[in-house]
This record gives sequence, C-alpha cells and structure tokens, in this order.
Amino acid sequence: MSTPIQRVVLASRPNGPATLDNFRIEQATLAAPAEGEVRIALRYISADPYMLRLIAGEIDYKPGVAPGDAMFGRVVGEVVESRDPAYAPGDAVFLWTRWQSQVLARAGDLRKLDLAVAPWPSWLGVLGHSALTAWAGLFDVGRPRAGETVLVSAASGAIGSVVGQLAKISGCRAVGIAGGPEKCRHVVDFLGFDACVDYKAPDLDAQLTAVLPDKVDVYFENVGSAMMDTVLPHMNRHGRIVVCGMISEYLSDEPARMQHLGLILTQALRVEGFAVGEYFSRQEAVNRDLARWIRSGQLKYHETISEGLASAPSALIGLQYGKNLGKQLIRL
Amino acid sequence: MSTPIQRVVLASRPNGPATLDNFRIEQATLAAPAEGEVRIALRYISADPYMLRLIAGEIDYKPGVAPGDAMFGRVVGEVVESRDPAYAPGDAVFLWTRWQSQVLARAGDLRKLDLAVAPWPSWLGVLGHSALTAWAGLFDVGRPRAGETVLVSAASGAIGSVVGQLAKISGCRAVGIAGGPEKCRHVVDFLGFDACVDYKAPDLDAQLTAVLPDKVDVYFENVGSAMMDTVLPHMNRHGRIVVCGMISEYLSDEPARMQHLGLILTQALRVEGFAVGEYFSRQEAVNRDLARWIRSGQLKYHETISEGLASAPSALIGLQYGKNLGKQLIRL
Repeated sequence: MSTPIQRVVLASRPNGPATLDNFRIEQATLAAPAEGEVRIALRYISADPYMLRLIAGEIDYKPGVAPGDAMFGRVVGEVVESRDPAYAPGDAVFLWTRWQSQVLARAGDLRKLDLAVAPWPSWLGVLGHSALTAWAGLFDVGRPRAGETVLVSAASGAIGSVVGQLAKISGCRAVGIAGGPEKCRHVVDFLGFDACVDYKAPDLDAQLTAVLPDKVDVYFENVGSAMMDTVLPHMNRHGRIVVCGMISEYLSDEPARMQHLGLILTQALRVEGFAVGEYFSRQEAVNRDLARWIRSGQLKYHETISEGLASAPSALIGLQYGKNLGKQLIRL
Repeated sequence: MSTPIQRVVLASRPNGPATLDNFRIEQATLAAPAEGEVRIALRYISADPYMLRLIAGEIDYKPGVAPGDAMFGRVVGEVVESRDPAYAPGDAVFLWTRWQSQVLARAGDLRKLDLAVAPWPSWLGVLGHSALTAWAGLFDVGRPRAGETVLVSAASGAIGSVVGQLAKISGCRAVGIAGGPEKCRHVVDFLGFDACVDYKAPDLDAQLTAVLPDKVDVYFENVGSAMMDTVLPHMNRHGRIVVCGMISEYLSDEPARMQHLGLILTQALRVEGFAVGEYFSRQEAVNRDLARWIRSGQLKYHETISEGLASAPSALIGLQYGKNLGKQLIRL
C-alpha cells in the first residue's frame, strides 16, 4: 500500500545566492517498506550551510543532489511502520535522508534516540553535528589554553554559539562577532560571551581593538576570507585560525582580496581547515560532555525553527543572510 | 689606535623594491678594542630576504637599521686583535654585526668556528640559518611522511635547495619550482630533486599537474601569495603549507587576489608560518645531522658569492629578482 507524501525538490542549481526559484514542492507516493526496511515520518530537518555548496555543484557528497532530486540531509523522525525486528512504531531515530514528509530507510542506517535525554530538536542541534563541529574545531584544531582569548565569527549561529561557550568552560575569554545589536546582545546576555562586536557597524576594526586588549589567540572562522582579513591584524603571535566555514566564498566567484596574508609568516600563525565528518566516531563521547554542561547550565543553546516542509527552502536560503539565531531547523 | 674601515650604510628606506640609491659606502674609523672586546676582520656576510623587510621598516628587529645606520646581519670573520683571554688573532668566529670591513664585538657575542669541519662560507650557508630554516620548516611545521610529495618554491635558493634534499632523505618525492630552465636543471641534476617546473614559463599550472601525479602533501612556500594561490588546487586533503617566505609581499602594497582560499576548508589544509629565531637553540644539533649528510653526499649545496664589501647592496637587491643560486654571500 503506497502512502501519499510531499517532498522538497531542487528545481535548478543556484548561480550565486540560492533563491526560492531553485526549489519546488512536489507530491509523490511512497511504496510500502520491504523486508528489513522501516517507514519513518520526519519530525525535524536540519538546514546547514554546506548544503548551499552542495546544490551549487561546488562539492559532491554521496548521494548528491542534482536538479530533479529531493534535497538530502540530516533529520530526526518517528517510525510509523517497521519490517525490521529492531524497530517498532513510535521509535525516535536519527538518519540521513531525503527531505520528504515520510521516507523508507534500511534499519542499519538508523540511530535510535533517547528522548528522555534531550527533546527532538536537540538531536539535530546541540547534540548533533553543529556542536560536534564546534568541539572538534575548537579543541582539536584551535587548542586554546586557559587564559587565552578566543574570537568567534557568526557567534550567534549553531556552531559559533557553542564555540564561545566551550571557550568559556575552558577558562578562556570569549569574544563574538555577530550581525546587528540584537544578535550581539543575545551572544553576551544569553550565551555568556565576554563581549560581542557588530560586523554591520562601520567601525568593525576599532570595535575589535576595543574589546581585544590582549588580542586573539584562537580565531574561529565561520564566515570567509574578508572577515579573516579583518581579523588577521588582531592575531597574537602563534595564533591559530580555525577555518570552519567560508559561507561568503560560496556566494561569490570573485577572488578574495587579502591585505594581511603576510602576517601568517611574520606572526607565525597557523590557519587550518577541518571537516566534521572525520569526527563522527566521537559524537557519542562528545555528547556526554555536552549533556553534562547543559545540565550544569554552562552550555545554553537556541534553535530557530520554521514550520512545515514547505518552509524548508526559505529556511535554507535564510542561512545566507544570517537570519537564524542558533541552529536552523524545519519542523514537520 | 684607530683603524680606517669601510661600511655599507642605509641611505634611505626603499619604497617598493630596494635599489642601489638606498645604500651608500662610507669610510670611517674604528677605535681600538676595550677590555673584554675583540676586533674582527669580516670574511663573509650573509644577504637574506628578511633584510629587505627590515630596511623597508616593515619589521623591527633589534638593533634596527634606520637611514644613516650601517646594515646589520650575520657574518663570519677572523679575530685580528683581542682584549679577551678566550680569543686570539686568527680565530674564526660567527657573529651578528654591522656590515663593515672590521668591527668591534664583545667576546660573549661570538661563536668560535672549526674550519676543519667546514670552510668559511658554509657557516653562513648550509650550516647556518638557511639550513636551520629548511630543517625547522620542513620537519617541525610540514611534518612529511615517507612516500608523500613535497613541493618547494624558490627551489634553487638557500632554503629551498635544502628543503628538497631533506625531503628526499626522508623518503619523500621532492618537486621544485624555480625560475628558468638553467635553475630547473640545477635543481634536478645537481640537487637531486625528482622534478622541477619553471614558473617563468606560461603553463605553470599544466606543468604542475604533469609532475604531480599524486598531488602535494607538503608545500614549502618561499615566494608569496600568488604562488600559493597557484599551488592550492594541487594540494592533497590534509596537506600542509609551510609559510617560510613571502618575498613578493615585501615588494607590493597591493592586496593579494586569492581564488582558492576556500580550499583551506574543503581540503582541510593547514597553512602555518614560523620564525627560525625560535629554533636557534637547536642549531648545533641540526648541524650534526647536516654535516653527516654532507659527508655521505646526500646533501649538496651551492653558494653565490659576490666580491667585496661594495658589492653587498647589489647582492641584497638581487635577492628580489632571484639572481642567486643557493646562499647569497658577500666575500671581503
């Protein structure tokens, strides 16, 4: 017996920033699960910046998303029909799948979630890949020592918000860069950073000087080369720049104009990129730390949740313009 | 009793590339040594790229070189008069001093040289800071593993020539970038690199593709951002870029135009600068390794030696245009 479903399909590859025209919502039907398969109703979808590169054809993860394909990513959902003995209707699961109201999946591709530990959206947010990314980038790449200063761009976002709080937990001074006074207040008042500067104000360089009396030891880059060039003169000798996101690079074909690259040499800086995929095996161990800090009140988080599968394209597009505060999710 | 001497004085700070107008040769006199001092006749002077930044006022080492000051750097010389019991006329010494035919120095600032181990110029070249720079940058920053590919720019220069040979000794494939067919032949035939490409030829990118079937694991950057941008697409995942020199950055105020910085993220690259000054304490230990490899024939070196103190400005200026093959020295 087939089930009617909705799906979010890539209509065309964006040329520059993604727009609503690049997506369409389709009606479809889902076959009944075969032996060893499970049918799942999606509850939350994760919208992530890397997807913008994926649909632009700039990176090629498996399975890819070509025009005509449904979007693909991380979701949490509820089992509604199971032909595998390990799963029963009502089970909460995490999986990588297509953006559809319901999907079929093989039991081996699912991870069961304990909703007593954390509610649905947390498994895509603070206990998901965003926090793992923050953990891996800060601790494994940036390696701050207590007393150092950690600067974070996109500080109110899903990753940046966790980076600054992990820095505070590690005995560092945490300074954020965010867009607009409202986000800056959230970063200081809610997330507990020591300071936050507004990159939309005209005097970013002077603001940075003012809030960085001891300059920067670790800069966590979530934005791109123009921001990196602005921060470079504020780096201490032997400073580390963790390259986590270069969202502005996905939006432009123009070469970056870098005034201060020579400081990599004269200040003996380390600029290093990384991929969270290489840390997936540590997710459970990291989540134990994170869950403890959430319980102790040292780690706070915020989610921006859009309503309904049809809102998914605009939620993804909004990432390009910093419209989200914390993790961007879509609730079905 | 005072001694008549010659000295090389900075006449004016260069604005852009240094030219002969920025220097003048002066006659002067040297006082007799005081108690605890030694008078030294310089034998060889080391000309190094960092001096171009120093005289341009872009970096400020102690003691600095301001207009009106004699140039300052690393030299080897012979003691001609001593008022310290540790030194006698005829002793060979290394010191940091002014570019003068003779200088006074405190005995504590000298290091005695054993000319039975290596001749005069080697103490400023292959057993001096250039080789230490190659050693520190390659082994401590780049950390190549046997079987990996190491690419070196300015491969025929004092540092690059050693980097490639140390890479070979470590079981790596060594590929050089140099200017012109003559230098490229020297890099392959004399220094023993596996291949060398000519950056003055129009098809540098295609040449790199041809000689790098396994791409690049460690890129040793001696040139600057434009070369780095050319090499970035040839880097393997988790590749390392050792930023040792950015001589092109000293010559230009233009911002660098970087097309491929985003690869730092997507290829999880590490780009790291370093300063040889932090490795000076290891010089003696490193020299033991280097001397062994010189004796075994695994480490070859070449010096470009200009004649006479008055030739020092043109020797230094020539570094900007790659006129040297191996270490650039001035013989007095």
